[in-house]
Amino acid sequence: MNQFTCLEDVPDPQALLDKALQWKQNPLAAADSAKGKTLVMVFFNPSLRTRLSTEKAAQNLGFSVMTFEASQGWQLEMEDQIVMNTDKAEHIREAAAVISQYADVIGVRSFPSLDDREKDYQDYILGRFVEYAQVPVISLESAIRHPLQSLTDWMTIKEHQKQARPKVVLSWAPHPKALPQAVANSFVEWMQVADVDLVVTHPEGYELAPDFRQNVRQEYDQQKAFEGADFVYTKNWSAYSDYGQKPTVKKDWMISLEKMAWTNEAKFMHCLPVRRNVVVADAVLDSPQSIVIQQAGNRTFAAQAVLHELIKNKV
Amino acid sequence: MNQFTCLEDVPDPQALLDKALQWKQNPLAAADSAKGKTLVMVFFNPSLRTRLSTEKAAQNLGFSVMTFEASQGWQLEMEDQIVMNTDKAEHIREAAAVISQYADVIGVRSFPSLDDREKDYQDYILGRFVEYAQVPVISLESAIRHPLQSLTDWMTIKEHQKQARPKVVLSWAPHPKALPQAVANSFVEWMQVADVDLVVTHPEGYELAPDFRQNVRQEYDQQKAFEGADFVYTKNWSAYSDYGQKPTVKKDWMISLEKMAWTNEAKFMHCLPVRRNVVVADAVLDSPQSIVIQQAGNRTFAAQAVLHELIKNKV
Amino acid sequence: MNQFTCLEDVPDPQALLDKALQWKQNPLAAADSAKGKTLVMVFFNPSLRTRLSTEKAAQNLGFSVMTFEASQGWQLEMEDQIVMNTDKAEHIREAAAVISQYADVIGVRSFPSLDDREKDYQDYILGRFVEYAQVPVISLESAIRHPLQSLTDWMTIKEHQKQARPKVVLSWAPHPKALPQAVANSFVEWMQVADVDLVVTHPEGYELAPDFRQNVRQEYDQQKAFEGADFVYTKNWSAYSDYGQKPTVKKDWMISLEKMAWTNEAKFMHCLPVRRNVVVADAVLDSPQSIVIQQAGNRTFAAQAVLHELIKNKV
Repeated sequence: MNQFTCLEDVPDPQALLDKALQWKQNPLAAADSAKGKTLVMVFFNPSLRTRLSTEKAAQNLGFSVMTFEASQGWQLEMEDQIVMNTDKAEHIREAAAVISQYADVIGVRSFPSLDDREKDYQDYILGRFVEYAQVPVISLESAIRHPLQSLTDWMTIKEHQKQARPKVVLSWAPHPKALPQAVANSFVEWMQVADVDLVVTHPEGYELAPDFRQNVRQEYDQQKAFEGADFVYTKNWSAYSDYGQKPTVKKDWMISLEKMAWTNEAKFMHCLPVRRNVVVADAVLDSPQSIVIQQAGNRTFAAQAVLHELIKNKV
Repeated sequence: MNQFTCLEDVPDPQALLDKALQWKQNPLAAADSAKGKTLVMVFFNPSLRTRLSTEKAAQNLGFSVMTFEASQGWQLEMEDQIVMNTDKAEHIREAAAVISQYADVIGVRSFPSLDDREKDYQDYILGRFVEYAQVPVISLESAIRHPLQSLTDWMTIKEHQKQARPKVVLSWAPHPKALPQAVANSFVEWMQVADVDLVVTHPEGYELAPDFRQNVRQEYDQQKAFEGADFVYTKNWSAYSDYGQKPTVKKDWMISLEKMAWTNEAKFMHCLPVRRNVVVADAVLDSPQSIVIQQAGNRTFAAQAVLHELIKNKV
Repeated sequence: MNQFTCLEDVPDPQALLDKALQWKQNPLAAADSAKGKTLVMVFFNPSLRTRLSTEKAAQNLGFSVMTFEASQGWQLEMEDQIVMNTDKAEHIREAAAVISQYADVIGVRSFPSLDDREKDYQDYILGRFVEYAQVPVISLESAIRHPLQSLTDWMTIKEHQKQARPKVVLSWAPHPKALPQAVANSFVEWMQVADVDLVVTHPEGYELAPDFRQNVRQEYDQQKAFEGADFVYTKNWSAYSDYGQKPTVKKDWMISLEKMAWTNEAKFMHCLPVRRNVVVADAVLDSPQSIVIQQAGNRTFAAQAVLHELIKNKV
């Protein structure tokens, strides 16, 4: 594996899943495998879970970790053939190449503009890093995907599933802010290779991008979607068609105990952070059906599996 | 020991003191005892000494350390049964539980509002962390206590005392800003178990909270308090009764060489940072009587003793 | 070596250069030599390369590294005999002494005011740290020097030189902002001990400070300076005489392929970050003549050589 930015980068997703589950059994099984190696994480957007879990994963393997908060005053020029006489002091070409001098793996977190759809869906910033980095790049959530989260989600479903082919529902949720589509996109992408019966349910206007929604069963009726569900994964995202906007929604899409009763005693999942009593009712989140904390805990082992793959054949 | 938030959490304070003194003799005596373990420190308020000394202590024991500056844009909802449609993106219930997935010990620093006395004196934020964390919590200074500082102070007195039961004076000092009562509260709390003759001196209006000042000798006359003192510990705090305010003080409470001459060649202590020529005159701080730097140095070993107690029986 | 703030601190610069080149061959040759030791880096100004490369160097030697971003709300009082009743909560005397309790080496980065020339050229802030620190101080760029950069530059020239005594040109460049003179000052300081033929070229008004420009060949005609050059090192700096200002420059001083053609197939160097098409044309930076990335990579080994010298004789 040469990089980890989307499902396509992974030669054998099932094997990667198995490895994540194995690391969880024995996190320190190869505690020196990255000794002398360095992970540099560049954050253009803040992060709690991703930062801590990826750092923890790296430390479990013996990496040194250096974190760079690019959101604090480090303005990168991403465009080519430009006269750099504005506020942007450094070009991505130099930045990515220089960080590569100090890093064996570079992690990059960069949210979408939610403004320029074309550029966001090119995964422009992550792409520029990949282009000029001289070492493997790992996505810590990009404009349109969050593959570490998706591998974690798959792992969590695997651990909690009671039947061979569980029914998994991705259910859109209300939110006071316009959020990226990355978690939803990535989830449906990875569920294609998981042995699950996937349904995506959301109000009209919130259809995912064509590249992601193809081959995915879509259902506007939340109740119908929930029937027989083994897992309810809820998440807000803003519109793709009316890009980055929040089209009006008439019905109540929050997850409640009443709605959970429509399911086959489904487990409740969310990538966190979650808005209580907006996205999901307290009663669901605080019930035994909720596995959001275990899900967050799995982030470490998903990251560990990926980091180990990226360096295992390097001297 | 299951947590470290106040004196009451410590089963045997004298044994903890002895251990802190022992770690100082040989900081790397158990350099692998926390190997594979992680300390996550969450700062709602900035810190120099506490951050560096606790990190140093953790590294001496083999911990990996991850620091999270919550003051930079991470707004936690602390209240229950609330509709989270404001700026607060995450609830303490999830936050504390999630950090517990990556941490073996969680350090929390959180200052008081100096506004809502009831909530501050419940030690609300620290309490919420303790409630929802799944691993031991260590206070890195809370709204009303700073126990790592107090253990350090006790250690420093122990090292410098010339008689079995030294006279220790906690002397209020002027300050341009309204400061928390945490250091003073904690100091008098811990001095109850130290074998010292404690006097607290301050202007009228600056009485400590009833729970802390009970059993403590109080003296409004600074000179009388200083007579025969072996240690002068000075510190500003704002009022408890007129909560968070700075009632007018007529006399000069700054520590000067003249005042130190009232004492029994007392050592001068302060938790730092200290305002020169406001809290204490240059001449005192730069004299051999001042032990503030050694005191700051002891922070490492107090933290190391606490961290080791918290994890020593964990696999 | 007791500190590393300028060339004069280095007993044997040639030996230090040789060591930097050796560390590059085998970065982990003494991976435990600083085990149990701590590097604390204090940044009054932000940094990418210096922070990452110095941290990497420290980790290669087994140091624990703690980073303190002093730019975020930590206001130090530098003046003596002052009544500290303003915003500055801590005095450099305590700050430097306290950090020394937790550090075996202290790194300090502090830019000039570009306003008070006298104070800047005393290297006031770095000097105050050196005065009150109790452990060796390493400059991570000060008001007037950047010795880690200069050692790196020397190392890079050594690696790429084709003749015994290469011609090295330091060429002033345009820039939208007024920048420090530190890199230029330091470069000419260190080139005095390198076996090179040094020329400094810049427009009128941009003469370096007398202490730095003495013994240095100066040339106002850029083309003349470039003739026969083996290395072109370009960098902007603001004026020393009209201190911190940017006197008007009529000619175009940007480095282009046309200008590189005046040289002896010179290698192109810059300390980075660099403004593309302001300081240097894309065509030069993206050509094989540019060695700026290798130069940035060498930062690690220069820092490693210095750090190792500072601690090698300490228990």
